Amino acid sequence: MALPVRTSVNRLSGLIQKCKGLRSLCSVEKNTVTKEKCGGRVFSGIQPTGVPHLGNYLGALESWVGLQEGYSSVLYSIVDLHAITIPQDPAKLRDNILDMTASLLACGIDPTRSIIFQQSQVSEHAELSWILGCLTSMPRLRHLPQWKMKTKEKREGSVGLFTYPVLQAADILLYRSTHVPVGEDQLQHLELAQDVARIFNNRFGELFPEPQALLSASCRVKSLRDPTSKMSKSDPQRLATVYLTDSPDDIILKFRKAVTDFTSEVTFDPEHRPGVSNLVAIHAAVSGQSLEETVHSARGLDTAHYKQVVADAVIQRVAPIQQEIARLQADRGHLESVLSHGAERARQLAAPLLAEVRKRVGFS
Amino acid sequence: MALPVRTSVNRLSGLIQKCKGLRSLCSVEKNTVTKEKCGGRVFSGIQPTGVPHLGNYLGALESWVGLQEGYSSVLYSIVDLHAITIPQDPAKLRDNILDMTASLLACGIDPTRSIIFQQSQVSEHAELSWILGCLTSMPRLRHLPQWKMKTKEKREGSVGLFTYPVLQAADILLYRSTHVPVGEDQLQHLELAQDVARIFNNRFGELFPEPQALLSASCRVKSLRDPTSKMSKSDPQRLATVYLTDSPDDIILKFRKAVTDFTSEVTFDPEHRPGVSNLVAIHAAVSGQSLEETVHSARGLDTAHYKQVVADAVIQRVAPIQQEIARLQADRGHLESVLSHGAERARQLAAPLLAEVRKRVGFS
Repeated sequence: MALPVRTSVNRLSGLIQKCKGLRSLCSVEKNTVTKEKCGGRVFSGIQPTGVPHLGNYLGALESWVGLQEGYSSVLYSIVDLHAITIPQDPAKLRDNILDMTASLLACGIDPTRSIIFQQSQVSEHAELSWILGCLTSMPRLRHLPQWKMKTKEKREGSVGLFTYPVLQAADILLYRSTHVPVGEDQLQHLELAQDVARIFNNRFGELFPEPQALLSASCRVKSLRDPTSKMSKSDPQRLATVYLTDSPDDIILKFRKAVTDFTSEVTFDPEHRPGVSNLVAIHAAVSGQSLEETVHSARGLDTAHYKQVVADAVIQRVAPIQQEIARLQADRGHLESVLSHGAERARQLAAPLLAEVRKRVGFS
Repeated sequence: MALPVRTSVNRLSGLIQKCKGLRSLCSVEKNTVTKEKCGGRVFSGIQPTGVPHLGNYLGALESWVGLQEGYSSVLYSIVDLHAITIPQDPAKLRDNILDMTASLLACGIDPTRSIIFQQSQVSEHAELSWILGCLTSMPRLRHLPQWKMKTKEKREGSVGLFTYPVLQAADILLYRSTHVPVGEDQLQHLELAQDVARIFNNRFGELFPEPQALLSASCRVKSLRDPTSKMSKSDPQRLATVYLTDSPDDIILKFRKAVTDFTSEVTFDPEHRPGVSNLVAIHAAVSGQSLEETVHSARGLDTAHYKQVVADAVIQRVAPIQQEIARLQADRGHLESVLSHGAERARQLAAPLLAEVRKRVGFS
């Protein structure tokens, strides 16, 4: 059974086609996009977890890079205000913010085409979040999955963790964003942003467009040690997660130890063979082939040999990113100036919007 | 039974004596305070409900005026971010902010000695509130009385109403305030601010002093129609609440219709005779006499005549305030410039504090 994992260009095309009403303006050619772009605005945020893992890269960042071609205005925020909803070590958090910045740049986020910035440097995020919180009912928030999941029924997280989705709504609406690349697990949070936009517009007059989801067909990378769960930084098993900065030896080791099953043939069947299917999906994503092509190319290999093939493909794919991350990490001043310049540009968009909100609410 | 309602000067003395450790610097003389002031910083906020009523004035604002003499740094904020935790009409809210500003000035808050400002004009309030929300647990907040009371067990208010006390903590801590004049009903909210200060200091190093309550012995004015509950703007009975801008005829009418009992003698016994005791307390507060003196001066009057005496004393007390409010209301430009100047001065204190918080948390 083949899942629709596509090549990068096809994926980009899939994303762009969601830009409703502007489809005719957006055409995709082999590896390039015509200069006419969708008029909408894309916003997305990523937590400063340090250097991203393969799941972050193939599941989100790679398509973020593509969106720069498709939209005339693109904002990517390193959401440090969200990060502190669970306890953080301050020095580590600072390092992680800069590492994430280096990683975004190295993956291909271009600060001349996208606004890349640190959420806490733009005061309007917290301000709008307060105002939107006054338009959000407690029951509406209590039923969101993130809170239920993260607090594991105990409901004892921080107030920040509980109000997390309101800040997300503020992030998106602050820039009157029209499109938000999200994973399926974030769809309900985007719905909250849509609801809050509607409530504001109804009460204070039309101001916010209703942001639409860009659900990409990106590869959803699973843990190498438990292929039924997502690859995650918080996985306690060190070998479960491949980072963009892992050494070739580490990558080979992690793939060699990847959990598969007792069948040696390479097939794609996520339901019955999640382990080997995860390898195929990763292989397809990093090589730019379809799943069918990927499975076909592995004909005759047993899973032990195939692991080496996938590891090599991953190493080849991340090598230039890795080099670029290392180069950028060596120049903190440059990273800080990218963030500072990005925050300035974000503020230029955020300040007039918040001024308008303040006026409509009755503050000025 | 005499409650300790004091003259203005005694009340001020009571407040100042709470400035622990600096008592020797603060001495009170008849109607004046020596130039040496407590080194602490006073912060308090008031909702922009428009022109205050007699309960606001005698219960809080009058002592706010006195605190300007006792402390070297005093901030009074018109808390519009708090106001929107329940729905507001925007045009009315704007008017109410300016009316409250005019009223504070008319009551004697001096913008050259106090920083008087509009909360939403200083972005650091919302920013610090977000950060402190990440240090506050949900159970801690759920048990605060305001939320329980305002949502009447249904727990269906807005997220803003729920997180109200966290913003209050941010208001206070943002200026490293040492003293907060509060009513007894706000003591638990001040305790939250103290707790959050401790949590921050423990985790990120000593930064916030633990703010102390200034519990004034001010007169707690009751509704004229139901002397068992507080005088309130939201009282549905028009005659229950006396505003500083009520006409003399209205004031006379409201006191004439004040609920008392079937005994005609004037005594002070809040438990058994709440109606007439409320009149005595108001009379004592506006005339600057003790309760004993006030009761003594009413000897031989029946309650009907006494109501006229109290009304006259109130009219005399509020007349100059009323004139000043009218004069200030006619000049919106001046009121706006007072607020704008206040916000600028508040920001000068708030910005470096927030910069330090951001640094300690790991944002910069």
